[in-house]
Amino acid sequence: MTDAAPLDAVLAQVDAGLDQSLERLYALLRIKSISTDPAFAQECQRAADWIATELNSIGFSASARPTPGHPVVVAHGPEQAGPHVLFYAHYDVQPVDPLALWDTDPFEPTLVDGPNGKKIVARGASDDKGQMLTFIEACRAWYAVTGSLPIRVSLMLEGEEESGGKNLAPFMEANRAELGADIALVCDTDMWDRQTPSITTMLRGMVGEEIEITCASKDLHSGMFGNAARNPNQLLAEIIASLRAPDGSVTLPGFYDDVAEIPPELKAQWAGLGFDEAEYLGEAGLSIPAGEQNRSVLEMLWARPTCEINGMSGGYLGDGFKTVIPAKASAKISFRLVSNMDPDKIRASFRQHVQSMIPADCSVRFIQHGGSRAITVPSDGLYLSRALTGLSDEWGKPAVMTGSGGSIPVAGEFKSILGLDTLLIGFAQLDDAIHSPNEKYDLASYHRGIRSWVRVLAALAG
Amino acid sequence: MTDAAPLDAVLAQVDAGLDQSLERLYALLRIKSISTDPAFAQECQRAADWIATELNSIGFSASARPTPGHPVVVAHGPEQAGPHVLFYAHYDVQPVDPLALWDTDPFEPTLVDGPNGKKIVARGASDDKGQMLTFIEACRAWYAVTGSLPIRVSLMLEGEEESGGKNLAPFMEANRAELGADIALVCDTDMWDRQTPSITTMLRGMVGEEIEITCASKDLHSGMFGNAARNPNQLLAEIIASLRAPDGSVTLPGFYDDVAEIPPELKAQWAGLGFDEAEYLGEAGLSIPAGEQNRSVLEMLWARPTCEINGMSGGYLGDGFKTVIPAKASAKISFRLVSNMDPDKIRASFRQHVQSMIPADCSVRFIQHGGSRAITVPSDGLYLSRALTGLSDEWGKPAVMTGSGGSIPVAGEFKSILGLDTLLIGFAQLDDAIHSPNEKYDLASYHRGIRSWVRVLAALAG
Repeated sequence: MTDAAPLDAVLAQVDAGLDQSLERLYALLRIKSISTDPAFAQECQRAADWIATELNSIGFSASARPTPGHPVVVAHGPEQAGPHVLFYAHYDVQPVDPLALWDTDPFEPTLVDGPNGKKIVARGASDDKGQMLTFIEACRAWYAVTGSLPIRVSLMLEGEEESGGKNLAPFMEANRAELGADIALVCDTDMWDRQTPSITTMLRGMVGEEIEITCASKDLHSGMFGNAARNPNQLLAEIIASLRAPDGSVTLPGFYDDVAEIPPELKAQWAGLGFDEAEYLGEAGLSIPAGEQNRSVLEMLWARPTCEINGMSGGYLGDGFKTVIPAKASAKISFRLVSNMDPDKIRASFRQHVQSMIPADCSVRFIQHGGSRAITVPSDGLYLSRALTGLSDEWGKPAVMTGSGGSIPVAGEFKSILGLDTLLIGFAQLDDAIHSPNEKYDLASYHRGIRSWVRVLAALAG
Repeated sequence: MTDAAPLDAVLAQVDAGLDQSLERLYALLRIKSISTDPAFAQECQRAADWIATELNSIGFSASARPTPGHPVVVAHGPEQAGPHVLFYAHYDVQPVDPLALWDTDPFEPTLVDGPNGKKIVARGASDDKGQMLTFIEACRAWYAVTGSLPIRVSLMLEGEEESGGKNLAPFMEANRAELGADIALVCDTDMWDRQTPSITTMLRGMVGEEIEITCASKDLHSGMFGNAARNPNQLLAEIIASLRAPDGSVTLPGFYDDVAEIPPELKAQWAGLGFDEAEYLGEAGLSIPAGEQNRSVLEMLWARPTCEINGMSGGYLGDGFKTVIPAKASAKISFRLVSNMDPDKIRASFRQHVQSMIPADCSVRFIQHGGSRAITVPSDGLYLSRALTGLSDEWGKPAVMTGSGGSIPVAGEFKSILGLDTLLIGFAQLDDAIHSPNEKYDLASYHRGIRSWVRVLAALAG
């Protein structure tokens, strides 16, 4: 299947069908599949049904399978010689607030001219609907030209990636036999830059925690009680402040115990990437790295753990002013893990630290929001080298191996539940504004992403 | 006018008319005059119009005067010998959130049986519509029985007390001649306990500040940027935590410079009040005083300044979890002032301290929310002693002089703009839950508050 004739024909098919392919992406982007908000549960179901219908129309045998949460779409292509791949992506998206900062309706995809060519603006354009469709559209082109696929392909597409959903791992456990494969493919990562494809071989893990502190039994007047009554905002601020030392390190006892230093050769490879710290921070309007002071930004992001306050609230948040001492204050806090850090151990250390700061007449409630270990993909595997070749052929320069500061818990679950290593291949760009207003996906990411998967499928056949 | 016959007749009139008097209070409580929220501006106008109409029907010459904000109601009774009093109260109320914690509709007043007799439950029942009507209904009874009032009475009733409105002081400046009087009366304070009336002679001042911290130029993904990008939630928490020392004192440079120690004789008088710290904190479900460790709770509340975080927010606050590093975080912070503390000096010290903690690539915006000095009423005045007598007569035990942890900025403005000392007389109770869900006013506070004012008006005539 790897002879040039069908490959070129499939690539030509991708080019010729780009406009229709875009229309399909727009149809999916219009579905408001915000998984974290129960109000959008029906939209998540719609997205899953839409995808299953498309996959069946291409030639897969697909269905949206119910779970206690949002559905998982599972699809299988025809039996083939060569490796069997299990492709993963997610159809759910992040909330869109603050809505006022969007230039266009987040659920009405818009093609906009940008400094780097046309871009598709919508919630999920990059993370992860656009990325997911690069693979599905590559399969469509193979089917259209050859009536089949170059290797055996299964897909598992979930709807709870953005909400720390706990239903995928049990689903994988329950369907272990059906989901068996030789290697997993995940499309939820970046290119190194606009010209350089990459496969991500290091991912941080994550621990999500929410805490709710209760002091008084009701909201109090700050004149009548100010000074004498414990203010949970003040207490929460003291707890949060205590999590970071002045040198930028995280203060939790044992936090760095299982953090490995990067080997010198990896450090050297990363140095060769020509990463521009000022440009990276500049994209976000910043210039001073905030993490551990003796580490490079790339180390901070790929090889060092962090503690981030994702949300914080207490008291009166509306217009004007209200002289209240609230009864409660709360925060959503996430830790990113590296190396062998144990999510359970970090969670326990955090809870113990917080509890130790709560006065005897106040209380704290902990709400767990998922946990996953960091993962590292062996860099000497056969499938990895074949996939790198496919990517290099499309982009005309060698694909690189990188780390990522983000967490893709499913990669850890592929290993622990299905015994699969994972190739993380994606076409997102740093400026895609994922999780932010005006999220976009470059038209080039979409088009050449499809072409890249066409080649990678061929290359994996060996 | 102070002979017993009319006084007794007026008190009897109050008792006989209580049910109708309650209906009038309910009508006012049904008006949603939340001053801090622009959506309720029309309701504030309705409240002002309602009050002016009532006052005119009693016999006053009243009108709702426009300001750049909410109206001020001004009313005048007939010329009389003896002192001329200017009565102040406010018709605006606090927001009602969190609405879910109310047992009944906050704007549908409900008479409920409580452990201390019947209570009127509604937003503003105590603060300050109920208190305001105790005075107006006392005047109504005097008019009904005698066709006039025992002394000359003017009223000034505002609608921006709960929103740090800046329109009352200019209004007083512009109407200085019309508002001239011998003494101001303010009904916005507590009784010492359910049996003991009090006149408040010390009030804390206030400085309100809002800060908005901006780090990145947009919301960021905490995986892609966590560690490297400054998190404004973390920064805000560090700033807030820095405002209090471990011993409970406020750390701002110069904060205690103008704070006077209480004279020993006042300290002794307060000790004689039999204040129960455990009971006071227990009302709020607390047991450990949070302020300066070497001070009594009464000192913390009446004679020591404080810094309270009234509101704090940043990042994702909805259901579930969102791995975001927000661009902005903000807080609403108030300082309560005592003695000679200068609001401008405290505000400047706060801003300088906050600014000093902002990294060079981040910024902070300050929004001012009002400021007022603490006030102390001379304890040897003629009107004060007459008013104490009137109160003592009604309650059958000596009225006491107390401090208050709250701020009533208008008392400072009466002094600085109109040259008037203020008698702060009110009938609220500690458990009224003002500014909180299920705010209430005891029926006894309302009924005997009206009777108290009947007597105080007579007593002030001399």
